Amino acid sequence: MEAMAWEIGRTGDAEMDGRFRALTARIARAQEPDGYLNTNFGRPGQAPRYSDLEWGHELYSYGHLIQAGIARARTTGEDEFVQIVRRVADHVCEAFGPDGIQSVDGHPEIEVALAEWSRYTGDPKYLAQARLFIERRGHGVLGDIEFGRSYFQDDVPVREATVLRGHAVRALYLTAGAVDVAVEDDDAELLDILRSQMSTTVARRTYLTGGMGAHHEGESFGLDHELPPDRSYSETCAGIASIMVHHRMLLATGEEGYGDLVERMLFNVVAASPAEDGRSFFYTNTLHQREPGAVPPPDVASPRASSSLRAPWFNVSCCPTNVARTFASLGAYLASVTDDGIQLHQYAPAMIATALGDGSAVALHVDTDYPRTGSIRVTVDETREEPWALTLRVPAWAEGATVAVAGSDAVAVPTGAHVVERSWAAGDVVELELPMQPRWTRPDPRVDAVRGSVAVERGPLVMALESVDLGTSVNDVIVRSDQPLVDHPAQFDGEVSVTVVPEAVADAPWPYANPAPSRSAGDARSVKLIPYYRWARRGPSTMRVWLPEV
Amino acid sequence: MEAMAWEIGRTGDAEMDGRFRALTARIARAQEPDGYLNTNFGRPGQAPRYSDLEWGHELYSYGHLIQAGIARARTTGEDEFVQIVRRVADHVCEAFGPDGIQSVDGHPEIEVALAEWSRYTGDPKYLAQARLFIERRGHGVLGDIEFGRSYFQDDVPVREATVLRGHAVRALYLTAGAVDVAVEDDDAELLDILRSQMSTTVARRTYLTGGMGAHHEGESFGLDHELPPDRSYSETCAGIASIMVHHRMLLATGEEGYGDLVERMLFNVVAASPAEDGRSFFYTNTLHQREPGAVPPPDVASPRASSSLRAPWFNVSCCPTNVARTFASLGAYLASVTDDGIQLHQYAPAMIATALGDGSAVALHVDTDYPRTGSIRVTVDETREEPWALTLRVPAWAEGATVAVAGSDAVAVPTGAHVVERSWAAGDVVELELPMQPRWTRPDPRVDAVRGSVAVERGPLVMALESVDLGTSVNDVIVRSDQPLVDHPAQFDGEVSVTVVPEAVADAPWPYANPAPSRSAGDARSVKLIPYYRWARRGPSTMRVWLPEV
Repeated sequence: MEAMAWEIGRTGDAEMDGRFRALTARIARAQEPDGYLNTNFGRPGQAPRYSDLEWGHELYSYGHLIQAGIARARTTGEDEFVQIVRRVADHVCEAFGPDGIQSVDGHPEIEVALAEWSRYTGDPKYLAQARLFIERRGHGVLGDIEFGRSYFQDDVPVREATVLRGHAVRALYLTAGAVDVAVEDDDAELLDILRSQMSTTVARRTYLTGGMGAHHEGESFGLDHELPPDRSYSETCAGIASIMVHHRMLLATGEEGYGDLVERMLFNVVAASPAEDGRSFFYTNTLHQREPGAVPPPDVASPRASSSLRAPWFNVSCCPTNVARTFASLGAYLASVTDDGIQLHQYAPAMIATALGDGSAVALHVDTDYPRTGSIRVTVDETREEPWALTLRVPAWAEGATVAVAGSDAVAVPTGAHVVERSWAAGDVVELELPMQPRWTRPDPRVDAVRGSVAVERGPLVMALESVDLGTSVNDVIVRSDQPLVDHPAQFDGEVSVTVVPEAVADAPWPYANPAPSRSAGDARSVKLIPYYRWARRGPSTMRVWLPEV
Repeated sequence: MEAMAWEIGRTGDAEMDGRFRALTARIARAQEPDGYLNTNFGRPGQAPRYSDLEWGHELYSYGHLIQAGIARARTTGEDEFVQIVRRVADHVCEAFGPDGIQSVDGHPEIEVALAEWSRYTGDPKYLAQARLFIERRGHGVLGDIEFGRSYFQDDVPVREATVLRGHAVRALYLTAGAVDVAVEDDDAELLDILRSQMSTTVARRTYLTGGMGAHHEGESFGLDHELPPDRSYSETCAGIASIMVHHRMLLATGEEGYGDLVERMLFNVVAASPAEDGRSFFYTNTLHQREPGAVPPPDVASPRASSSLRAPWFNVSCCPTNVARTFASLGAYLASVTDDGIQLHQYAPAMIATALGDGSAVALHVDTDYPRTGSIRVTVDETREEPWALTLRVPAWAEGATVAVAGSDAVAVPTGAHVVERSWAAGDVVELELPMQPRWTRPDPRVDAVRGSVAVERGPLVMALESVDLGTSVNDVIVRSDQPLVDHPAQFDGEVSVTVVPEAVADAPWPYANPAPSRSAGDARSVKLIPYYRWARRGPSTMRVWLPEV
């Protein structure tokens, strides 16, 4: 519903709007007089309302419904759907308020939704309810489960935690809601705690792709530096949730390092999930596929990580709707506006029209084929006479970036937020040039699982070696990092050639010895790497991001 | 019951025998007239018999009951318990025979039990039933499940599989039964297939400890060379099951390499599980404990891999009974007899009395404190006049081993089976000296998860670094493999000192870069390693077997 609402707003699609209204009518009939809305609980023969907060997902579902209501309200305006949502939000405050049920939902999501709903409605009671949910959590208010209470972050209060743990999507949704509460309440202490939690999580529990979640079991974060590439869970929805968190951090702090993370997760987690035709997707996003796997069946649900190929359906299929709502609202991640300027965070062809603090209209458009090249051209279409600031994110990887303003010479700019403040005239062009030459990347030495390995990146893209290009399994070569990387910018979003050496190791009766079981090397050869997000589009294959070095 | 039966046989414990008989009476009352025996199915209000072969464990439970019956019969003789077992075995043949239910149990075990029961009774119908179960499997006779049919080896017929996969205990129990069938039926083709499966499984899917099972999810084998030390499942019961398989392979082939594997798994998986007081145990046996964890609660079941400490109980507690029956029948693994000789496979203080093919009595005893030292002294106590062969296993790691026979000089012997054939006299002594100096061990280069790391072994023991000895987390040091290993044979089963360098890495905002995030090294120092099986006996700790090298 949220994806539909954003998409209707973006395109004005009347047919989709008709479907949205038909769904609204159906949902309206299911809503109870007191606002309760869930057909799985509370009726004869069903478990009572809120009797299974651990797994029932009643508040979780409300959360997504409320976010859909905000999307509808912001694009179409108050309609019957928004009124349903209002009754749901009021019901939650009534049922779970200070005198209500003293618990939380096993799957956070209601928190971020209520905070956003408060922002939309201007009514502080929803924000207060969001805060209540966040403060209640972590005191063992939910039942214990096999995975332990850390699974749903009910082990440690939000303000006392030092790092994200447990189910990755749950942990990140909760954090997004907590950031909203901290920002809306001007709670600098809480915001600092959350920033510290996230910086530790990024430094110790995040994959090169930006993916989060190292365990298949419990779909959870691993411990510090426990980041196996071949068993990375890196759920698509965790990537989306992490983007939600880091975009909020970016808006809260203005630090473009958060924009770098959003970019990394968009290009290397979210973009990897759906197939080009949108009809199949990855639930998990491994960094090392050891066996090609089989073609997933078209008509039954697939296990979550059974093949190298995207599957049409899984038993819990949260990814397609989550990816759809993210793509439908992608524009919101590109730019922000303050009283005296516009900030460009993500680079894509775009038209941006807004008003500054004094009400003056400004408009600009962005031309780019980024990340195929690093050339980003921003043209001012409409402006006030007084100066204002255009801020450009220069990614941390873009050492040597240059900016040319309104026809003047290009000058080198440091990474981070680059501010161009001047009196603009319509037609002024700012040219940002990000160096896209491919680069080697090595891991923190504490990441045991990829010791002795190296990866290749090109701009914001993590590159991958796929067996389709190698002609043999990716497990049978090592890479020569002493040989140059060769850029092929014309291919899609860029490809990179590396030199590899085929290596054969015969099975020993026992695989551990000194010296190690020997290997025989073949002739060095060149092979291309493709952007990671493009892998597995050419049939079953093996793939790896981290390449063992000589 | 099996452990009790062996233990009663070994000790003649009358009190335990009384308890065994009381349990027998209770079980007898639960048995149906047609031999069916399971109180969880088939009665009013319960699911019908054999309606949940995937998860119901009815035949699995029969399997362990039958093995208990064999233990009872071989130690005490035919009694009421053995008669119960006979009725169960007959019932299985009736219910699942050629005209019976055309399926198998989701958890193999009945196969090996029926083959053993056939060997005990001499009745080929039980062996035929075991063979039927083995041949039926792998054709999708069970329902599909979330983990996929490979979980219970119903994906590929036994004769067509090339490697073990799915749930490790299930796969290994099945293989043990298949080896028994192959041996009893003189089915050389099947035996060759199984040997090939096991050699591939050992070469590609086995931990340094001999542990099997790389995935927590599904308690299953990983793919080839997917052997993360920090997420090794390496279930205790899989170690026992692997010993069952390899001891059978040893008896079937006479190849002492299988004895090496049995020894490795006994000392480094099975011995690691129970606490010294037998009141807590490891369900899984990790090779790298990243965080110390908490003291498990004494009165509730623990998650299977939640702490560095052994726990008193788990939700599925198969380990204690499985360890108990293995320890109670440990004598069976030490030696075997053929028409013209005795083979010593495992070394422990023992008295062995048997008869050769001609009926002549031979007896010998073994004195040793192995593996603290490598001195094994075999004394012949009784012998015939004609020559016979004493075979000693010289482990593959024991390069430089020597044997001295009946007072003559010690001579170097190659690894493998060393045969001493001569006319023996009572009092003759054979002294086997296995070199126990510690050694470095490196992994097959295809085991990505431990690239750039080295382990230390001492005799049959894998050594481990524990934080209790280091004073800091084991994650904070690297090892200097260019410095000598120092042996401390007097400590328990031996300890070894290595030189380590403390290494500090500061968190970077982003943990992947070129060059890699830098580390600062401290002063080199010496620290002791302990036998892996002894770890976690001194409170919560971190531990690792594979040590990163400089």
